[in-house]
Amino acid sequence: MKKIVTLGGGTGNFTVLKGIKNFDIDISAIVSMADDGGSTGILRDELGVLPPGDVRQCLVALSDSSRLMRDLMNYRFQQGGLGGHSFGNLLLSALEKVTGSFEKAVEEAGKILYIKGKVIPVTTHQVRLKMILRNCQVLEGEKEIYLSQEIEKGYSSIYLEPYPKANPQAINEIMNADLIVVGPGGLHTSLIPNFLVEGISDALRKSDAKKVFIVNLMNRKGQTTEFKVSHYLAELERFIGEDIFDYVLVNNQKPPQELIELYAEEGDLVENDLKEERIRPAALLGELRKGIKKDLLKRNLIRHDSKKLAQELMKIVDHL
Amino acid sequence: MKKIVTLGGGTGNFTVLKGIKNFDIDISAIVSMADDGGSTGILRDELGVLPPGDVRQCLVALSDSSRLMRDLMNYRFQQGGLGGHSFGNLLLSALEKVTGSFEKAVEEAGKILYIKGKVIPVTTHQVRLKMILRNCQVLEGEKEIYLSQEIEKGYSSIYLEPYPKANPQAINEIMNADLIVVGPGGLHTSLIPNFLVEGISDALRKSDAKKVFIVNLMNRKGQTTEFKVSHYLAELERFIGEDIFDYVLVNNQKPPQELIELYAEEGDLVENDLKEERIRPAALLGELRKGIKKDLLKRNLIRHDSKKLAQELMKIVDHL
Repeated sequence: MKKIVTLGGGTGNFTVLKGIKNFDIDISAIVSMADDGGSTGILRDELGVLPPGDVRQCLVALSDSSRLMRDLMNYRFQQGGLGGHSFGNLLLSALEKVTGSFEKAVEEAGKILYIKGKVIPVTTHQVRLKMILRNCQVLEGEKEIYLSQEIEKGYSSIYLEPYPKANPQAINEIMNADLIVVGPGGLHTSLIPNFLVEGISDALRKSDAKKVFIVNLMNRKGQTTEFKVSHYLAELERFIGEDIFDYVLVNNQKPPQELIELYAEEGDLVENDLKEERIRPAALLGELRKGIKKDLLKRNLIRHDSKKLAQELMKIVDHL
Repeated sequence: MKKIVTLGGGTGNFTVLKGIKNFDIDISAIVSMADDGGSTGILRDELGVLPPGDVRQCLVALSDSSRLMRDLMNYRFQQGGLGGHSFGNLLLSALEKVTGSFEKAVEEAGKILYIKGKVIPVTTHQVRLKMILRNCQVLEGEKEIYLSQEIEKGYSSIYLEPYPKANPQAINEIMNADLIVVGPGGLHTSLIPNFLVEGISDALRKSDAKKVFIVNLMNRKGQTTEFKVSHYLAELERFIGEDIFDYVLVNNQKPPQELIELYAEEGDLVENDLKEERIRPAALLGELRKGIKKDLLKRNLIRHDSKKLAQELMKIVDHL
């Protein structure tokens, strides 16, 4: 059975995992530990736990349990002192307290949710993502970076503090992979943080696995405005190594003009400016859900289809 | 297979269920819905859910899942906005929100915990326990009643507001029981509230099941000070019906004098003043855990042994 390892965090990762789960492959999801916003941020601050949010999404994506259990994991309390916490985050934090280890907590949550494959924190050290902008302003934490509109003017440094060693299990999975999938996801907030962990980029370079990058559909205003495929690749390869990706999956399906306009406040479409052999254009857009309300987050309107993504990845796997 | 139905709430109920779980019988635990203290009270107030605390204890008692899962259910968050909440309470409340029904939530939690038997809320209406003292003071809520030291001076009324109908499933279980077990537990706060629900006392009287009352070991100062077995029976039978109990299990083992003295601030030993046939004296005390600290809640020092309780109950079951 071929082994696919994903590296990421957030919703992009969720979409990939949800799609590939249905194929006969061995899956390991390595997850960024930089998240510090929302419910996750509060739990880190108040309980001193490792960030559960991205791990929770991976667990749900890989879960073979009932719809109810998956809904439960994503349920967010609305009121009072619990307001904003998702139940799954509380489960992971309580399990971390009871077992004494975040890794063990993730493993136990995986059993409760009957997940296919494994979910592995990229590091088990408590870290904060920091970024120094070219104007010398320091952005403290993933949330602050995520909300900044100044990143497109350039930054001089991005790093995790304190500089963490990789989880040995993550290194092991990378070394034994047949295919490694990076993206889609927030470039500075979900993808790069994985390569700021000591040993991860090294392992990627040394691994015999083929590497594929799934390019984001949309840029994020103030962060990656007008980025093209070449910019994404250049930015990632700066941290991992030149020409690291053997395949680059790029969407070539145009979203309805109406949606592009709706989305314009948040960002523009990522265009492909490369004609290299490794570029694989494909129709990857998700269907627009009927009756979707215009006041929903616009960025949810243009998104990858997990089935289409999985099919393209499986074409690569079939040729390994 | 014989069917045992327990009626109660709190730790006493937990002890009974934990013991009888290991025998080849059909168990249904009917649980009081009057709790409004601590984590449970906050969840009721903030989220509008039904009280999870007593149900959680029953689920854990009947659970066949791993030690870790049971520890998780009882884990209490220590800090921040979550401080004081037990994880199991959050699970039940989140499940109630996701399924839209407390009964369904209890059922699903039972599946997650692989429970033996069933846990059934005595009513699914939102109610508050109230008590009017003889001096006309109104005690609002189970917690206020639990903390009052004035009850021994007499009360004129105890009731649930609004007056709730029984959960039909609870009635059904009572009518089909072979043995119904009441107690041990807080007389006014865990036991009587079950009989203030419309239809429950009626069902007990109509049911062909044998009924057994397990008398508390200790009185609660200011509430049942110097109560003897006859007082407990009189008080309960006032709500259920005269001579309702076919068996009365009474501990006849004396705790060490040292412990009685330690406990004196909280209450005195319940003495047996009856010589009726239905009275069944037996050694029911739990072993004192070694190395137990004196600053622990003293009331945990003198407690029933779940195995001994279960053995006495099984002697009754064997003669049904």
